[in-house]
Amino acid sequence: MTVPLHFSEVPLDKAYRLLNHGPTVLVSSAYAGEHNAMAAAWSCPLDFTPPKVTVVIDKATRTRALVEGSGNFVLNLPTTEMAALTVALGTTSALDVPDKLRQHGVQTFGVEACPVPLITGCAAWLICRVIPEPHNQQTYDLFIGEVTHAFADPRVFSDGRWHFDQAPDALRTLHYVAGGQFYQTGASVQGDPS
Amino acid sequence: MTVPLHFSEVPLDKAYRLLNHGPTVLVSSAYAGEHNAMAAAWSCPLDFTPPKVTVVIDKATRTRALVEGSGNFVLNLPTTEMAALTVALGTTSALDVPDKLRQHGVQTFGVEACPVPLITGCAAWLICRVIPEPHNQQTYDLFIGEVTHAFADPRVFSDGRWHFDQAPDALRTLHYVAGGQFYQTGASVQGDPS
Repeated sequence: MTVPLHFSEVPLDKAYRLLNHGPTVLVSSAYAGEHNAMAAAWSCPLDFTPPKVTVVIDKATRTRALVEGSGNFVLNLPTTEMAALTVALGTTSALDVPDKLRQHGVQTFGVEACPVPLITGCAAWLICRVIPEPHNQQTYDLFIGEVTHAFADPRVFSDGRWHFDQAPDALRTLHYVAGGQFYQTGASVQGDPS
Repeated sequence: MTVPLHFSEVPLDKAYRLLNHGPTVLVSSAYAGEHNAMAAAWSCPLDFTPPKVTVVIDKATRTRALVEGSGNFVLNLPTTEMAALTVALGTTSALDVPDKLRQHGVQTFGVEACPVPLITGCAAWLICRVIPEPHNQQTYDLFIGEVTHAFADPRVFSDGRWHFDQAPDALRTLHYVAGGQFYQTGASVQGDPS
């Protein structure tokens, strides 16, 4: 549970930028002494200030019970070198494999004011508190969270901006499609001619 | 309103894959003879079958009134060569510039069973019907849509899969960050070792 070397806080008014490009996330959770993490491609910013996010957490997952029990979750952004781990965490359920995190060699660490472990090696982390919306949760498996703290690996995100083109490709974030296949975040494109 | 050459239907059970990698979209809309389109980075799949999506449409946009009035919208996926247009459609409002689409040279076309124009040159199109959720719309500007038809440019999406690595880079989709800057969809990464 040692905080990794490449870890710095992101101001909350820039937190949406961590998720704005649509990366796949790992949702980590903890409740009553149990820890878990699952992959989720369906997560999205919802608001700027205070920053809010949405994430779809199916009723068939163990994560669902932990998030509903604790009212907290963390969105961890895996890097390209974590692609196989991300698929593994998206296809194995703690309902079948109770020591899922250990089996897949997941390393975690803690930060003050967050009851949920963060996953080591990720590009960014959004600490979230569930805003209860029972109808959305029941009907659509849709959870809304307020981001209370955000962190990033400063090799890829600093001064409120991603710097993927200046960092090793292994640190790029991932965008899941299907069948174990992702696209990594690609080249920067400037759309504003001014 | 001629259907473009590179246009083929996507089976509805594969429609989520068009949006799964988190691209920025152009939301097109039509109501009472008025047409509009705005950029939105905050759109996400919500379900597989029938396919559903979420999209955040701010109250300050003209699109909001058209979507609420008609109950329909289209998510158009702009390509890298449309980056400047996407920024323009995200920063100009039809409330200030009533002929916004014409000013920006937006070409559209129609398809049967869709009352909303589709934007020419995009990589994919998801035709959506609003599932009314007044609390989400009012509190979070969050709209839920059911995808009733989906289409893609077969040069980049066919047989239920994206093929960005085999197509010109100009046809890659875009992922907005901030300040006019996007990342294009990058290289394919296989996370499943089997």
